[in-house]
Amino acid sequence: MNFRIAVVGTGAIGDYYGAKLAYGGSDVHFLMRGDLSEIRRAGLCIRGASENFRLAEVNCYNSTKEIGPCDLILISVKATSNLDLVELVPPLLHPRTMLLTMQNGLGNEEFLAEHFGAERVLGAICFICLSRTSRTKIERYDYGHIMVGEYERASQPRTHAVAAEFTRGGVQCTVVENLALERWRKLVWHVPFNGLSILAGEIDTAAILQDEDLRRTTLGLMNEVIELANKCGYPLERTTGGQEMKRTEKIGAYKPSTLLDWEAGRRLEIEPIWGEPLRRAFTVGANVPRLEVVYALLKSLGETMHGKKSAAKIGHSL
Amino acid sequence: MNFRIAVVGTGAIGDYYGAKLAYGGSDVHFLMRGDLSEIRRAGLCIRGASENFRLAEVNCYNSTKEIGPCDLILISVKATSNLDLVELVPPLLHPRTMLLTMQNGLGNEEFLAEHFGAERVLGAICFICLSRTSRTKIERYDYGHIMVGEYERASQPRTHAVAAEFTRGGVQCTVVENLALERWRKLVWHVPFNGLSILAGEIDTAAILQDEDLRRTTLGLMNEVIELANKCGYPLERTTGGQEMKRTEKIGAYKPSTLLDWEAGRRLEIEPIWGEPLRRAFTVGANVPRLEVVYALLKSLGETMHGKKSAAKIGHSL
Repeated sequence: MNFRIAVVGTGAIGDYYGAKLAYGGSDVHFLMRGDLSEIRRAGLCIRGASENFRLAEVNCYNSTKEIGPCDLILISVKATSNLDLVELVPPLLHPRTMLLTMQNGLGNEEFLAEHFGAERVLGAICFICLSRTSRTKIERYDYGHIMVGEYERASQPRTHAVAAEFTRGGVQCTVVENLALERWRKLVWHVPFNGLSILAGEIDTAAILQDEDLRRTTLGLMNEVIELANKCGYPLERTTGGQEMKRTEKIGAYKPSTLLDWEAGRRLEIEPIWGEPLRRAFTVGANVPRLEVVYALLKSLGETMHGKKSAAKIGHSL
Repeated sequence: MNFRIAVVGTGAIGDYYGAKLAYGGSDVHFLMRGDLSEIRRAGLCIRGASENFRLAEVNCYNSTKEIGPCDLILISVKATSNLDLVELVPPLLHPRTMLLTMQNGLGNEEFLAEHFGAERVLGAICFICLSRTSRTKIERYDYGHIMVGEYERASQPRTHAVAAEFTRGGVQCTVVENLALERWRKLVWHVPFNGLSILAGEIDTAAILQDEDLRRTTLGLMNEVIELANKCGYPLERTTGGQEMKRTEKIGAYKPSTLLDWEAGRRLEIEPIWGEPLRRAFTVGANVPRLEVVYALLKSLGETMHGKKSAAKIGHSL
């Protein structure tokens, strides 16, 4: 296939996978905000354990109108900016354009389906530890593989074509038949670690696992997500929690992406990771008290962080 | 009665009730740390809606040895300093000395009973909004009444004598027959409001109640405490939660005492309010998932606050 590809999203994820595809020979066009001169001059540098390359010529643009219709759009904006897509995406569409969301959590496929049609939507689940160290440099610390699947249906020929495109770019890519199930499986990790790392005082995964009470809370949250997934019709094994705990112990000390966002003062992706699962729990009548607490606290923290909620003024004690 | 009274504890609570008793004519002796000259010169000023007085002569001391044996000891140290009492209290004891803990939460009576004998122990539950505005000034914003009861037994003649002493000092005082039940009742408020006010981003009670998700979490925590109390043999009515919500709405915007401690960088009284109830839940097999989360988060926050836990160092994202 010779896909014309657009990357919509200014984070490290879009830059990394877009650069990999372009370096592998794909026809990739990046929407990038702000001044493009630095990227045009320096290109995009990708460094990792087994890779070290510079994409010298980056097709970058200030607007999607300049890019024009594409076959495949990688969506990598923060979920908090999803509404921007309503205006950004249409200039990129032709009748068979595919939208591949590389975002975390639940609800992003649904958002794209609602606005652009379900038949266009695919999702990618990214397993990667990345950090953008400068405007033109992406550091990959670990992993890199992705899972690609169709929204609410089994894989199609095009799914495998998309996967082949990533493979050609040197990205290990698996086609999954039940994308939502894999989203839920990833939530088993995200819900506890991304939340507790902020709420427990800006600590990493190793510090969480070293604390007996936080461990119990982590496993409790994992089991709530697993039970909820099962109630929603996604058969996650009940042993998943224990496995994820062991896997995380092996990884060592990591800062989950939400903690990085928090430290950088960026808006938190609270709804896809905690809000949407909680709403589904209300719908199916699942009991998720820990998730309820973590969601309420993160939402409030996010609001106080951005000055939407006034802090207490009266110095009373009761 | 003519009690000889010692006040052990440097917080606003001990200063306030000690000053009230002394101003009412009781023989009160304050253990105070640090330089006593300012208190000796300026006295203790108490200001409130219907009171405004200065206790000109304050019997204050640097050590309990100087105070010597007393009939009644008001214990108002932070629960985090309870171990200090093991050395502070003995010089104050004669065979019938009463220990009245004015501390919050569970486990303080037990601590005193273990170290000094159960028969000496009484407890006071203080309903008061106080703040020390300077070394010599206490501002009372609201309430002020106390409940006094015996540790693990019904009221005795001495309980009424203690209450009479407070009444003479102008403190509204009720004798309760089941002190522990009233401690549990107060926990129904403390567990959610003191915890969430810190964890949700340093917000006051009004901000908590204005947020639908925090309200749900507040009521969820209240109901867990009520169920736990019942399982432990303390018959709290299941309507208590709703009543406390309404009562708190009427009070307006308050900062719970733990939030004041947090803002001032003081150690948090985590064990009496969250840790001890959680341990009792484990003992009786009660289901308290929300309490479990709040305890784990507060304990970790307290540790990061005092540098006991290293913050994350590695900037990875998963």
